[in-house]
Amino acid sequence: MLIRRLAVIGVGLIGGSLARALRHAGQVDEIVGCGRSRENLDKALNFGVIDRFTHEIGEAVSGADMIFLAIPLGAMESTFREMRGYLGDDALITDGGSAKGSVVEACRLGLGCLPPGFVPGHPIAGTEKSGVEASFMELYRGRRVILTPTDATSPEALERVTSMWRSCGAEVTRMSIAHHDEVLAATSHLPHMLAFGLVDTLARMDENDEIFRYAAGGFRDFTRIASSNPVMWRDICVANKAALGEMMERYIKDMEDLAETIRRGDAERLLEIFSRAKAARDRYIDTASDPGSTE
Amino acid sequence: MLIRRLAVIGVGLIGGSLARALRHAGQVDEIVGCGRSRENLDKALNFGVIDRFTHEIGEAVSGADMIFLAIPLGAMESTFREMRGYLGDDALITDGGSAKGSVVEACRLGLGCLPPGFVPGHPIAGTEKSGVEASFMELYRGRRVILTPTDATSPEALERVTSMWRSCGAEVTRMSIAHHDEVLAATSHLPHMLAFGLVDTLARMDENDEIFRYAAGGFRDFTRIASSNPVMWRDICVANKAALGEMMERYIKDMEDLAETIRRGDAERLLEIFSRAKAARDRYIDTASDPGSTE
Repeated sequence: MLIRRLAVIGVGLIGGSLARALRHAGQVDEIVGCGRSRENLDKALNFGVIDRFTHEIGEAVSGADMIFLAIPLGAMESTFREMRGYLGDDALITDGGSAKGSVVEACRLGLGCLPPGFVPGHPIAGTEKSGVEASFMELYRGRRVILTPTDATSPEALERVTSMWRSCGAEVTRMSIAHHDEVLAATSHLPHMLAFGLVDTLARMDENDEIFRYAAGGFRDFTRIASSNPVMWRDICVANKAALGEMMERYIKDMEDLAETIRRGDAERLLEIFSRAKAARDRYIDTASDPGSTE
Repeated sequence: MLIRRLAVIGVGLIGGSLARALRHAGQVDEIVGCGRSRENLDKALNFGVIDRFTHEIGEAVSGADMIFLAIPLGAMESTFREMRGYLGDDALITDGGSAKGSVVEACRLGLGCLPPGFVPGHPIAGTEKSGVEASFMELYRGRRVILTPTDATSPEALERVTSMWRSCGAEVTRMSIAHHDEVLAATSHLPHMLAFGLVDTLARMDENDEIFRYAAGGFRDFTRIASSNPVMWRDICVANKAALGEMMERYIKDMEDLAETIRRGDAERLLEIFSRAKAARDRYIDTASDPGSTE
């Protein structure tokens, strides 16, 4: 497959890395960048990540046969709205949002319909860094990309977006929108809530200075994801509140049971729980994808 | 300070590393190892970590002027009991237990009293590995060791145990027993409960295979401590159930608030929580000790 003109809306780590990978794979003729920060787009131009840029969404997407949205979930609806009337008949649209149901809703509301060329997606990749200077060609190599077609998505569109990601070295899998949001709530969104919550709980304790001073290495690893971008995680929580809310209820219930087990000093049951958890962690961890991802 | 005879009860990572460090520092004449596994003690002998060994606690401590207990918290009381009648007048006793209140209680019950030479301690150091083959001279260099003297501890005993740890390169601080148990409940014991709990919650979900398959790198870091030794953590929970139970209640309450905030999609409040957590994590993490510790 070959992209005549790729429009990257949001030229940061995620959008910039896709542009670099497709360019390197010889899969794209022209790359148009779009964003608000002139400084960032100038960098992208100097790095050769994009061929030209505009601040206008409409201008960026008109004439593009592939459009990639790498923007905050909170900006999706307005971005779709600004595309109205500018999309070509052959335009394919995909994105990198960490929650899919909300992106589909944003398209329905913003664009007014779900076009056959719209293929919601989620590359399970990322680093702690952000901005186009953090982007690199190899980000998606060997990483999973989940595509969640809508009822309106055409088989051809799904095929072309699948090929695009494969040409970047990614392993593409398909899932229903609802299932994606449940799986990510469990494996990514919930853990981030626990880490943010733990650090916040400790930070609000009187002796928090001392408490953090004695935090050991386990704590350091455990709370690393609490250093993630608060705005991005606010958007993810709002976007996936149904599935995440349910996972949190389930987890809180289990933690209440564990707390009760500890209070009554039930050593046998504690050993059972910890052994089951260690076995699962040791068994599954090698199959977990992407050491770098924090989304 | 110089130790005439050091008795190390439990010659594993913690006990073996102290022996190696004191030997290297030229602070000890003779090192007697004690434990149940003949194989492990033979290794310790061959590595030169100890000079001789016995399986009898009484024999190991008689004639020793420094005794280090590096055994599971669940084995403390019986070990103190086996010391009865074998302790010399100049014998100092310290330990490496992750909870201190329970060790003091084990001494009171096992030994029948709190001797002036008993200085409860907790080196905030460790690795995922265990056994004497994992021990190394530098384990305690630059790491924090918390000493929690009892009301019976003599100033001289506290001074000598402090010097012992300093000669291993450790940074020694002092805390009340109760305060140590609260601080560790917050910074170490609670995070381990959250990680064990998360992995167990996901492992018991129907689609757990798929869920773990899509777990990202953040999840990998976050759950690393769930691979810790289940027996050790069972003992820690039972030993520190009061302080840990209280911390868990506090955390669960905060998580319920967060879940409710997510359910009602309160973006402003979510941003506030995540920003406060990130700021605390980014601010304090450089002051956290011991990248290697999991206790």
